[in-house]
Amino acid sequence: MLTDRSRRVREARKLRRRAAREKAGLFLAEGPQAVREALGESLGPRPGLVVEIFAAVSTAARHTGLLDHAAGAGVTVQLADDAALASLSETVTPQGLVAVCRLLTVPLTEALGSAPELVAVLVEVRDPGNAGTVIRCADAAGADAVIIAGDSVDPHGGKCVRASAGSLFHLPVVAGVPPAEAVRALRDRGMSVLAAEGAGATDLDGAEDEGLLSRPTAWLFGNEASGLCADVLALADRVVRIPIHGRAESLNVATAAAVCLYASARARRRARPSGVS
Amino acid sequence: MLTDRSRRVREARKLRRRAAREKAGLFLAEGPQAVREALGESLGPRPGLVVEIFAAVSTAARHTGLLDHAAGAGVTVQLADDAALASLSETVTPQGLVAVCRLLTVPLTEALGSAPELVAVLVEVRDPGNAGTVIRCADAAGADAVIIAGDSVDPHGGKCVRASAGSLFHLPVVAGVPPAEAVRALRDRGMSVLAAEGAGATDLDGAEDEGLLSRPTAWLFGNEASGLCADVLALADRVVRIPIHGRAESLNVATAAAVCLYASARARRRARPSGVS
Repeated sequence: MLTDRSRRVREARKLRRRAAREKAGLFLAEGPQAVREALGESLGPRPGLVVEIFAAVSTAARHTGLLDHAAGAGVTVQLADDAALASLSETVTPQGLVAVCRLLTVPLTEALGSAPELVAVLVEVRDPGNAGTVIRCADAAGADAVIIAGDSVDPHGGKCVRASAGSLFHLPVVAGVPPAEAVRALRDRGMSVLAAEGAGATDLDGAEDEGLLSRPTAWLFGNEASGLCADVLALADRVVRIPIHGRAESLNVATAAAVCLYASARARRRARPSGVS
Repeated sequence: MLTDRSRRVREARKLRRRAAREKAGLFLAEGPQAVREALGESLGPRPGLVVEIFAAVSTAARHTGLLDHAAGAGVTVQLADDAALASLSETVTPQGLVAVCRLLTVPLTEALGSAPELVAVLVEVRDPGNAGTVIRCADAAGADAVIIAGDSVDPHGGKCVRASAGSLFHLPVVAGVPPAEAVRALRDRGMSVLAAEGAGATDLDGAEDEGLLSRPTAWLFGNEASGLCADVLALADRVVRIPIHGRAESLNVATAAAVCLYASARARRRARPSGVS
């Protein structure tokens, strides 16, 4: 049984740092839900996604089906002690199950395909929990892809993986593209580019009423503290504000993204022939 | 200048614990934004809300206007060293400014008034960041009140105060009421009670289309892991699901609340006479 001093555990532990993830081309997916999603992809559309799985002895017994499935498909399952698993974890309460996976991000062209209908673009977002939550919302709203543009957080970090609740495995994620390049690619594919910003000239409800959201749409969401900078706002077709009915100054980026992406999802659904859900 | 061993700082530091807050009837609001909001309330509709303010010497110079305003209005401003302020902080990067405030929660009857139109009810929500984010969303969506029902997090905890971004001071918040009592009070005031739950029989877009959201509405949101329990679901007029268009299993509670509360805000706005925003 492996301990926190075993070579494989020490190697895997390095993946808690972004530079090590980029060098190795690997990241850690923690917890039963993430491991199950990763394995599903690995045994389906993305062969080889899961490189190995570490399981605490205390946890393995509760997930024998999952682990047998992995082992049966040729994925190495390593039993380790609790301290080893805790050393791989970024959570306060380690979940006893960690998969080492190949990085998920894909090139912009591959992510967008030829006719994307809904895309979320995060620009300079710094909080991994926010990035993961937006990836989860984008997935739920039926987005085709998420682009993490500019100098943003690494989507493969532990907090982002956890906040995405599996969605990181569900839709293509692009990272590190300059915002201007992302916007060019989105517009080339016929998308409207809408920037979500508190001071926007267009009200979100108004945008929906005038049919703006029924078109293929890419949403730009900005930094937690400073929002979208002037250069990025200038790239958008419209700057859209979520109406504030009370005394709050703004919404946080994840809830703002949820409101905007669901406004688009609703408008697209209504624009479809009746009866198609 | 006070240090982290000064009696007043030690007394204030106890307020990081819920039991101490409840005993003293006081809590800590940290950071320039929260202190400004608290002071605005204290010098306006809620006299005596702010009991005293601690400011790090290194921070005070950047907020002389705010601190002069406080002192001029008779609020004690205590200068302290960085270690003292850090000891009062629950954040990784202490903000150097903390107000000791009287607890904000109010009785249910006072919070609801006679004709509330939009209310958010959190049931068994455990993450203070989620509770604070929902309070911020409810404020932005124009809700009349937030009820934190059942065995939920204390809204006066540091993480909740911070996540609310000032909104805790903007609308009445009720805590510790049993869900059944909250629902009875909401229904007595003519509100529809809608439970937000992934397996709900009513689709959110459908609810909007059939005019359900144009009525005065209270939304119930459940625990992060387990959602709303059967007893609470049974209290609702309808159980409403947010449509999932992609492969995500669900949304997290804060983004789900944002989508539902904004659906209500939009429906109410459209039901009003044209031209009234």
